[in-house]
Amino acid sequence: MNENVLDYDTVAFDEEKQAIRIIDQTLLPNEIRLITLQSQPEIWEAIQTLRVRGAPAIGITAAFGLYLAALPLRQLPVQAFLDALQQAKGYLSSARPTAVNLGWALHRMEQAAQRAISAGTAAAVTAMHDEAAEILQEDIRVCRQLGENGLTLVKPGWGLLTHCNAGQLATARYGTATAPMYLGAEKGYGFHVYCDETRPLLQGARLTAFELSSAGIDTTLLCDNMAASLMKSGKIQAVFVGCDRVAANGDTANKIGTLGVAVLAKHYGIPFYVVAPSSTVDLQTPTGDEIPIEQRSPDEICEMWYAARMAPAGIHAMNPAFDVTDAALITAIVTEFGIARPPYSQSLQEIILKKGRARQ
Amino acid sequence: MNENVLDYDTVAFDEEKQAIRIIDQTLLPNEIRLITLQSQPEIWEAIQTLRVRGAPAIGITAAFGLYLAALPLRQLPVQAFLDALQQAKGYLSSARPTAVNLGWALHRMEQAAQRAISAGTAAAVTAMHDEAAEILQEDIRVCRQLGENGLTLVKPGWGLLTHCNAGQLATARYGTATAPMYLGAEKGYGFHVYCDETRPLLQGARLTAFELSSAGIDTTLLCDNMAASLMKSGKIQAVFVGCDRVAANGDTANKIGTLGVAVLAKHYGIPFYVVAPSSTVDLQTPTGDEIPIEQRSPDEICEMWYAARMAPAGIHAMNPAFDVTDAALITAIVTEFGIARPPYSQSLQEIILKKGRARQ
Repeated sequence: MNENVLDYDTVAFDEEKQAIRIIDQTLLPNEIRLITLQSQPEIWEAIQTLRVRGAPAIGITAAFGLYLAALPLRQLPVQAFLDALQQAKGYLSSARPTAVNLGWALHRMEQAAQRAISAGTAAAVTAMHDEAAEILQEDIRVCRQLGENGLTLVKPGWGLLTHCNAGQLATARYGTATAPMYLGAEKGYGFHVYCDETRPLLQGARLTAFELSSAGIDTTLLCDNMAASLMKSGKIQAVFVGCDRVAANGDTANKIGTLGVAVLAKHYGIPFYVVAPSSTVDLQTPTGDEIPIEQRSPDEICEMWYAARMAPAGIHAMNPAFDVTDAALITAIVTEFGIARPPYSQSLQEIILKKGRARQ
Repeated sequence: MNENVLDYDTVAFDEEKQAIRIIDQTLLPNEIRLITLQSQPEIWEAIQTLRVRGAPAIGITAAFGLYLAALPLRQLPVQAFLDALQQAKGYLSSARPTAVNLGWALHRMEQAAQRAISAGTAAAVTAMHDEAAEILQEDIRVCRQLGENGLTLVKPGWGLLTHCNAGQLATARYGTATAPMYLGAEKGYGFHVYCDETRPLLQGARLTAFELSSAGIDTTLLCDNMAASLMKSGKIQAVFVGCDRVAANGDTANKIGTLGVAVLAKHYGIPFYVVAPSSTVDLQTPTGDEIPIEQRSPDEICEMWYAARMAPAGIHAMNPAFDVTDAALITAIVTEFGIARPPYSQSLQEIILKKGRARQ
């Protein structure tokens, strides 16, 4: 393959076609295929089946998705417009329950519509277009700042471990957990990055290893269960992961397996960093116990991807898509407004206050 | 599939054909195919590619393998016979470096030949046949005793986690880590067994989940990276794993990922038991640092089993087949001569002394 996956936008909006354009991530790394999403079922399906995934990229997709839902509603009376918008919002937010960005982006879109609605439904729709475009641009700025902040925690030549894909393919650019890696590469830090393959959907192998090696970063792939011996060998100086939702006390939901990596890092005395755009910080959720955990089909474990079934027919299999890493296992949470340290119930509130001041 | 995998011997010797008969485990769970091994390269290849695997089953296969190597050497003068036997032993022992049973079984076979050689090479070959048959029968008795001893550590209704396959498919019968599960099932213990799928070769999914569910045991499959959230949920009361080699200080080499499970178990206060036939206890190896760790091909991670490549072409991948679990993480080591507890440097020596006395 001569194409470079980093030459394409993970999520973009095609103004001419009035459609969302994404890389179909279910086909990576074997094929880089751009697909367009226009109808609501197309958008819902793309999010649910992980053609587009990663909390920030889901948020951007959902934002443009709600704008596309609003477009044909312009002719309706105001109340009917708002009611139909509510319905569309509920539909899109049902695609994935764990990532807070999905709801966050849809909420922002609704607020943008509400602010403009006194000027009519057409004005509301235009405002929604601009808000979605702003969410995308903001994501790029935020991820770059996450990278700058994360880079203060590491030294040149370090070995870094990451889990799942919190990379450019999960965002508009830079990624979250990978942002310090990309910025470090620009500055000649010479990191050695290790990627957990991340069963069952192999985002680490298919996506993270793919995008980091495409950027010329020294990248090594491992099975999830090799992380312990890798840490024991002394090759890892820090762990960086993304997140789907951070509760008010610092408990963090992220891809299944993250909790295990955090426990291992604690055992081996390796700092464990969560890289979290402030949009993933959810002060309305007190602790990790209140975060809904998406359960997915056992087929993803037993037969998906394989040339033959890899588990006996009819076997029970658990398949939680996420787990919750206890705040006590997290060394620091890197946000675009600074680095939160324990106690998180205090430091995360300060981050959100800073964010409020930045908006004014 | 209507056949039950437990109806077939993992390893048997076909006296009529003078050949080893095994279940080809690379085809499980999709096909139960019995194959026969006769030539030395066939036997070496079957061990190396894991058609037969698991420390005890490898030992049995190698034992009959060395007997088959000796058969055509009967006509040689004594010294030439012994020299050729040495060579055959070196060849077979090169198939897998980590499991101590391979070397242990070959050593026993050589000693049996040495003891009988004064009566001639034909007598030595006969003695080797009987020794291999005894190694197989002994394995069945030993595994049953491992089960009896392991059962004293658990209570009815417990949730048990295991990693890789230390089951009947790794031995002649009962398995090692699974022996308490099978015996418990006979006695109505009603265990809930959870099986790590065990990447990259998926022995947990393909073999353990297959054989346990075939036996009617309540079995749930999980990806390796789900073990942490499973333990956190309170569903696991004990972990049982097999082993390939136990060093004199209790450090234990077992399938890659075992170390991580042990760290997690320690974190969550769950007892972690290694089930080890005394043949895997190697007092000649002082600590885990001296155990050679087999490195296997990255293809097993990136493309094997899959309908398409699951990692970008040319990516670096690490693929150690084993890791070493530190003695400090192990609650107890279950042997057929009793249960060893820390400090292992003392308790393992006592086990081996008991074994010596039992032999007299």
